[in-house]
This record gives sequence, C-alpha cells and structure tokens, in this order.
Amino acid sequence: MAISENQIKQIIDSLSFSPDGLIPVITQQYDTLEVLLLAWMNVTAIRETLITGNVCYWSRSRKKIWRKGEVSGQTQTLCEFRWDCDSDSILIMADQKGVACHTGRRTCFYKAFRTNKISKIEPVKIDPKILYKKDKN
Amino acid sequence: MAISENQIKQIIDSLSFSPDGLIPVITQQYDTLEVLLLAWMNVTAIRETLITGNVCYWSRSRKKIWRKGEVSGQTQTLCEFRWDCDSDSILIMADQKGVACHTGRRTCFYKAFRTNKISKIEPVKIDPKILYKKDKN
Repeated sequence: MAISENQIKQIIDSLSFSPDGLIPVITQQYDTLEVLLLAWMNVTAIRETLITGNVCYWSRSRKKIWRKGEVSGQTQTLCEFRWDCDSDSILIMADQKGVACHTGRRTCFYKAFRTNKISKIEPVKIDPKILYKKDKN
Repeated sequence: MAISENQIKQIIDSLSFSPDGLIPVITQQYDTLEVLLLAWMNVTAIRETLITGNVCYWSRSRKKIWRKGEVSGQTQTLCEFRWDCDSDSILIMADQKGVACHTGRRTCFYKAFRTNKISKIEPVKIDPKILYKKDKN
C-alpha cells in the first residue's frame, strides 16, 4: 500500500475522534471475513498503520502505542483501511498471523449465547504461555 | 432465541461498560459476514435485543434507545450474541433487512483507501429520501 502524506492528512482530517483523541477500530480477517477484535487508535497509530502496513493501536490500559504482535509475534498486515458514514469508526481489513486473541484463540469474540446457552465457541489454538514466554531463548 | 432472565443477568454482569454506561457493538451480517455498522448499547438496549430478537442500540446523538429500522423499516434480526475476551465489546450476528446505512448503502463502512486512492466503495441501494420520507401514505 503506497500512501502519500496528503492522503494520510485527508483521512485523518475527515475522521471524528472522541474527546480523548481515540476512535474505535474493528479488525476483520480480509479473506475469511472473521471479526478478530475491536481496539482503539489515535492519530499516531493511524499514521503508523497507514505508512508501515503493520497494524498498531492505542492501548487504553497501558496508555501507549500497541504494535500488534510486537511481543507475541502475532502481527496483522494491513490490506485495506475503511471508515464509516459518520467517520467515527474504522474497519481494518488485515491478514492476521496466527491468533488475534491474547488467550490464544483466533478471534477475541469467543464468548457467545448460542443454542440457548452461554459458551466459549472458539478453541485455544496456541497456549498463551508460549505466546508470552518471558525467556525467548 | 429463548433466553432466561438468569442468562440475561449473567451476560450483563459479565460485561464491562464505559463510565457513561455504554459498550461498543459491531454488527455483522450472519451469512455474508459483512460488517454492517459499529454502534453502542447500554443495559436497556442489550436486554431488549436479547428478549425481542430485534436489535436496538443506544443513540449517543439523540440520547435515547434506537430501535434499528423503526423509522426506515431496515430492521436487524438477532442471530447470535457474542462478546470478547475483555468483555468490553459485543459482536452481534444479525440478519439485516435492506440496508444498514442511513445513506442507503448496505454497510456503513463505504469509505476506503483502496488501490492507492480514497473512494466510496459501496453503491447506494435505496434513496434515503425513500427510507426517511415523512409522509408514509
């Protein structure tokens, strides 16, 4: 994806941010169309995502830029950047490497009310201990 | 979908709401997996959606319950209710009648950076004047 500084400015200027400078982002696997997660971006995260093609967010809990997969290796490559009619939410089409969820599941949306009961509908594909092991040697 | 009062309580108790009592909701067409919109729910909207099977949100601009399709007829029928690992966002699988967007497009996410330019990637399927005509006779 080749984007100019002018195009980045045009996109950012058209977006509506919350008073704390954030905008909600849905990330969807570009081919299966599975919704992977909902996260937040600020201007810095949007710029970096558009320029590098590596999806990054703003972590509200850690209050810093969250480069998806930086620790776990489970990166997201940007395929398409979309936004909605009111310009107050973003839809990222991405290619997820491995799993999106810190629990080791493909998607964060694994809790459901299905066939009249509350259940976990997605299997754990990678043990989180492996994803976040302190000692990488 | 048959849900008990106890199950509704269990779902609502497990969810994390923002300080203003809201939670972001992604709505996805259950069969095509198209992301239709991002909106917000409060406890009342969640309860009504789970009980009636007709998706409703909290309108932040109008500050009231927004029964999707009440004016336009473009209703959403609930197919499955999911939520994420952190329990701070919801994914609704729904069957959208007609179009989700007030501009007359199937999805609200019609603005995109695609093939190196900013463009509108979804056609208008229904003239908004028809969707929101004052005189329904």
